Parts: sequence; C-alpha cells; structure tokens
Amino acid sequence: MTQLNQQQCQACDRLAVKLSEQYAQQLLSQLPAWVFVQRDAVSQLARTFRFNNFVDALAFTNRVGAMAEQQGHHPDLVTRWGAVEVYWWSHKLKGLHINDFICAAKTDRLYLAD
Amino acid sequence: MTQLNQQQCQACDRLAVKLSEQYAQQLLSQLPAWVFVQRDAVSQLARTFRFNNFVDALAFTNRVGAMAEQQGHHPDLVTRWGAVEVYWWSHKLKGLHINDFICAAKTDRLYLAD
Repeated sequence: MTQLNQQQCQACDRLAVKLSEQYAQQLLSQLPAWVFVQRDAVSQLARTFRFNNFVDALAFTNRVGAMAEQQGHHPDLVTRWGAVEVYWWSHKLKGLHINDFICAAKTDRLYLAD
Repeated sequence: MTQLNQQQCQACDRLAVKLSEQYAQQLLSQLPAWVFVQRDAVSQLARTFRFNNFVDALAFTNRVGAMAEQQGHHPDLVTRWGAVEVYWWSHKLKGLHINDFICAAKTDRLYLAD
C-alpha cells in the first residue's frame, strides 16, 4: 500500500462519504502522533507541533499552508509562541476522509524536514 | 491621548498588573470590532478577520506575526480558509494589559492597509 504521505488528496465530491470508524482507526495507527478530537461537534485529526520561538512556529504554519494550498484542502492552523496546532477534517463531510490522513502524514513530513 | 495603534508595547515586567475592569472597558470602546472572550479561564481580546480565500488569510497571519515579533508580544493566530481569528492577552499576567489593546489596534490597522 502506498504510504499516506506519498498520496495526493482526492476530489471530495458529492459521492464522498465519511470513513467508517474501523477504517479511521486503522489509518490513525499509521499516524502515532495524531489524535481524534471533537471541535464544534465534528471529528477532526489534531496534532500540536513544538518550536523554540514564534518565528519558527510561523514558518511551519507557512510550510503547512503551502502544502494545503497545493492539495486544495485546508486545515485550521493555530500559531502561537513555540507551537502550532494543526486540525484536519473534511468540511463538506463534516468529518474525516482519507484526504485528512494524507494531509496529516504530509504535515508530519514537513516537520521532520525542518 | 496618543491613539492606541501609534503606541508601542511596554515591557511587561514583574511590576505589571492586570487592567481594572473599568479601564479595560474604556480601552475596548476604542476597538469596536473586538470582544472580550474567556479562553482557558483567561480574559483575552478577540477578533475574526474575513478573507476571500486561504492565501489571503495566511498572508494576514504573516503580517500580524511580523508586527507581533517586532513588538515582542505574541497572539494566538487561528488561520483557516477565509478567516483569521486573533487573540491577544498577556501570558505573564494571565489576563489583559494595555499592550494587548495596543497590539489589537495595530492588527486593525494591518487589516485596513490590506
């Protein structure tokens, strides 16, 4: 199976459906630093990345933002001194799609490449 | 009185104290688009800025980030498609200081200059 971080987001059209609980758990096992959270009653994938200052945190926000724009899929990015919280979910589905796991894996790779 | 957006942040040293409720309300009246919110049991100044896409939102995050770094005072910046939420408060005080109102006014000016 192709690694998540090497896949590209699929178009999330009207036929797209939320992942089953079982499949979502299976994908999460490939992303050990991420957790499921509920925000505004929507299941999302979340991870907090740590940095030594504000400038490095903001630089990471920009790297994730550039990847998001390239994928046509956009997270919430909470930038603060020393940390960036990243939340991925699929707005149209009000829940999780494989795109979110692909983008979370790409986010991890951007952090490792720092 | 010098307009808030033309003032500079003061050093928030061990002698700094939280603003009185009355003075905070008086300063808030100079920032009509901002509201007081409680986040993690801390009073903060909040405003959501709207944009037409993700790229413009992220560009604003960067402008606010550059100003924050220059002032040595850092907000939480929640960047998403079409919006940036900005939260100012003084970490050392676990509440509001005049620095937060100065930085909120500077944030407004960055938005107007867009």
